Amino acid sequence: MKTLLLNRSEVASLLDMDRVIAAVEDAYRAFARGEVLQPPIMSIELPERNGEIDFKGGYCRSNDVISMKGASGFWDNLKDRGIPNSLSTVLLFDGTTGALTCVMDGSLITGYRTGAAGGISAKHLARPESSCIAIIGAGMQGRMQIRALSRVLPIKDVFVWDSYAQALPPYKEEMERELGVSVHACATPEEAVRGADAVVTATPGTKPFVEKSWIRPGTHIVAVGADMEGKQELDAALFAGAKIVVDSIAQCTSRGETRNAIEQGVIAPKDIHAEIGEILLGKKPGRENAQEITIFDTTGMAVQDNLTAAAVYESAKTKGLGLWHEFMR
Amino acid sequence: MKTLLLNRSEVASLLDMDRVIAAVEDAYRAFARGEVLQPPIMSIELPERNGEIDFKGGYCRSNDVISMKGASGFWDNLKDRGIPNSLSTVLLFDGTTGALTCVMDGSLITGYRTGAAGGISAKHLARPESSCIAIIGAGMQGRMQIRALSRVLPIKDVFVWDSYAQALPPYKEEMERELGVSVHACATPEEAVRGADAVVTATPGTKPFVEKSWIRPGTHIVAVGADMEGKQELDAALFAGAKIVVDSIAQCTSRGETRNAIEQGVIAPKDIHAEIGEILLGKKPGRENAQEITIFDTTGMAVQDNLTAAAVYESAKTKGLGLWHEFMR
Repeated sequence: MKTLLLNRSEVASLLDMDRVIAAVEDAYRAFARGEVLQPPIMSIELPERNGEIDFKGGYCRSNDVISMKGASGFWDNLKDRGIPNSLSTVLLFDGTTGALTCVMDGSLITGYRTGAAGGISAKHLARPESSCIAIIGAGMQGRMQIRALSRVLPIKDVFVWDSYAQALPPYKEEMERELGVSVHACATPEEAVRGADAVVTATPGTKPFVEKSWIRPGTHIVAVGADMEGKQELDAALFAGAKIVVDSIAQCTSRGETRNAIEQGVIAPKDIHAEIGEILLGKKPGRENAQEITIFDTTGMAVQDNLTAAAVYESAKTKGLGLWHEFMR
Repeated sequence: MKTLLLNRSEVASLLDMDRVIAAVEDAYRAFARGEVLQPPIMSIELPERNGEIDFKGGYCRSNDVISMKGASGFWDNLKDRGIPNSLSTVLLFDGTTGALTCVMDGSLITGYRTGAAGGISAKHLARPESSCIAIIGAGMQGRMQIRALSRVLPIKDVFVWDSYAQALPPYKEEMERELGVSVHACATPEEAVRGADAVVTATPGTKPFVEKSWIRPGTHIVAVGADMEGKQELDAALFAGAKIVVDSIAQCTSRGETRNAIEQGVIAPKDIHAEIGEILLGKKPGRENAQEITIFDTTGMAVQDNLTAAAVYESAKTKGLGLWHEFMR
């Protein structure tokens, strides 16, 4: 009953956005088919530390794996101690025996599976010819989203804004080199958003950055940042009349951007068009015309971590990566 | 940012019941002082596997440690696969940075901290001269409870019953040798319980084993087994007129033996005398006379795991035990 330990660079070497997109699509389908047990997220918030840790656990019948991810954000780490603000660990357990099969660094798992979520939404909800993307937030997730979107859309131009302007030159340099797109650093969110075919918000913001009047018909919006009470990136008015798709109704109405729109009385829960898995299963339509504004609200589900990490674990075994450790000895 | 890995035998070498009793007393006090964040337990139940896994997470301000324990019970493991039914892993995180400081095998942590809970309750709620103990369930916890009770009571005789009679001879041999007490194997629960000064129920039972008419005035009862909906070991009528003490009102009224008594209309939540930490802090009395029947209902709290595992981690660092692993490399 040994446990495989995978560190960050080993996980990095095994992650590939196309495979993560496939894993997350499987995850959404399994969730929509009712093959997933996914209890509410366990959060421990430590405001006196400017930190929080979220535990997301779940079981997926299709791979018979139980997963548990602890993901923390301690926002003074980098400036005060020179260590990353966001840290994460994923545990995998055998769904037949409960045995701990794998402990892996989870920081890249979250990044990839969240990026993949945006990509999957764009595949089904963006206009297929979308070539101009606005990115609000030039951090890790602003990179992951473009990596994923570039797999499913013919991206030519990326207009990026960040409240921390120094983040823009490295973002431009890195993404242009990696993806062969043109990246344009913007001075305001409005400059980034106006004229975009798809808009991605990926900040830890608590006030709306994106106004309804800037968004033209046919735009697809990916709302990534807001994943807990108090976070908001979109003008709630954007939800009125939009086609709203979520990863999980339960999560998005309790801690996503959708929650804000409901709280502010702009929509009711019944106005949510679908969970994304229902679209992947063909139970509900994705985009139906070139005019509608679509919003994908993602809070991130345990089952995404589960299938992504389980795929990494299987690849590691195949390639002989990682260190086996016997905790039961 | 290395992480210390501790396997079962390393954890075993660092656990000592007196020190665990001290750690769990600290845990109960911290909980009663409001220094603990302890979100609801996350449970994943897999009836088709005859298994379950519970995740208990918590933060304690006094040691600035975040803990997460995954504890599984897959009840066909031993008979079908020759591996333990109960498996457990504890993670510790630095409460200032969120960094993963330790991954340890948790099977003994649960055993010791649950035993310690019974011992602490007996110290404050059993008659001090209690020498005759009934144990219902001759498993691991039936052993841990006697180990802990023997630290706080002058035990001479242990009357033990188990639905699996073959469990009794090894229990007798082991406990007599280890603790110098006389162990008497009983054919029925009634034979074990009648005349006992303290009664411990430590089975995974779902129907009451212990009837009210068998219990004499002055008895202390430790209800260990029932820790989730559907589990029961005591006749609910026992709660009427008893002094009821719990580890956590929130947990015991939702998943403990106390829940059963409330559901069956025997008591109301207001009839709970105290959380044990309130007694340790001197805010509420323990036993007040030789006649009262006391019941301690324990469902097990994350903060017990937290302080017990954190003490093990500190001892391991002092003694240079375990393997340091760099997950962030």
